[in-house]
Amino acid sequence: MRKKRIEEEKIILGIDPGTTILGYGLIKISGKNPELMILGSIELKKYTDHYIKLKTIFDRVTQLIDEYHPDELSIEAPFYGKNVQSMLKLGRAQGVAITAALQRSIPIFEYAPRKIKLAITGRGSASKEQVALTLQKILKIKDLPQNLDATDGLAAALCHYYQTSGGIVKDSAPYKSWKDFISQNTKRIKQN
Amino acid sequence: MRKKRIEEEKIILGIDPGTTILGYGLIKISGKNPELMILGSIELKKYTDHYIKLKTIFDRVTQLIDEYHPDELSIEAPFYGKNVQSMLKLGRAQGVAITAALQRSIPIFEYAPRKIKLAITGRGSASKEQVALTLQKILKIKDLPQNLDATDGLAAALCHYYQTSGGIVKDSAPYKSWKDFISQNTKRIKQN
Repeated sequence: MRKKRIEEEKIILGIDPGTTILGYGLIKISGKNPELMILGSIELKKYTDHYIKLKTIFDRVTQLIDEYHPDELSIEAPFYGKNVQSMLKLGRAQGVAITAALQRSIPIFEYAPRKIKLAITGRGSASKEQVALTLQKILKIKDLPQNLDATDGLAAALCHYYQTSGGIVKDSAPYKSWKDFISQNTKRIKQN
Repeated sequence: MRKKRIEEEKIILGIDPGTTILGYGLIKISGKNPELMILGSIELKKYTDHYIKLKTIFDRVTQLIDEYHPDELSIEAPFYGKNVQSMLKLGRAQGVAITAALQRSIPIFEYAPRKIKLAITGRGSASKEQVALTLQKILKIKDLPQNLDATDGLAAALCHYYQTSGGIVKDSAPYKSWKDFISQNTKRIKQN
């Protein structure tokens, strides 16, 4: 019994590392059911010093890893940004969060925001609210946090689970499977 | 005697963190004379995996800190780049190197490439070769490394020394002081 649990259980830490807020979420996969472990955010806006922001990201991500022992890290990683300045800042925040995982030898996976939204809601252009409400249904979250940025980390974790487990989206999502999604969206699929 | 040395001695680690090569240099300030401790580079091009590159940056910068105990870290940090993609990558490399210093509570200082070139050679548009040759004269470097990217880290270290010690450039540089530079370049100075 114990052996079975060990074989099938997996913990995924999802984070959305920004420079004003870092959203995080942890899910535990027991068999085929993802369960919410914890959902939260780290406010970085209050720190005016850039290095204190980066140190806080490193310390808190390390703390989450040491407390919950995730097997994998999933990061929301935009590849486009407003300008080179904001991308440099974002790159630094990402680099610091990645270092925390590398220090604990945790495999890292990255997903673009659009890919995460698509995996969770079935729509790449879904709003933050739609993502949050879908997560609430799938993971049976009692109360959503006021700041929806916190749910972006959790969305990254669930997206990684779907991506690595065959990609069947639970029935609370608009589409039952990728096949289902494709059959209903033939015009939106890029033909090669 | 020992006390005097401790009071006046300062070690500066300068790095230029890129994603293909990371140049580094360490200088020791005894009194008013900067001395070369070590100059080198870490080849990152050979690692195809992005995370191995980042892990290598973290490990090697930490190693340099633990071996030479620098008091301060000076980083060459461009604020502009070809595109958002390259800036994101650069930001990650910078973030990882900064984390290594933050982990050892070492104060961090950043300088734009143009500022470093100006501090070393007196010209913000100086070539890599000019910067390297000036460094060679000032720090009495016997043989310059083949890859001049290695000297960029050392230039960052020396720039930080000039910046924090009153800015008098040694007589092997084209200008004796900022005053000297300004008096000879009145047209190049921006008037506010």
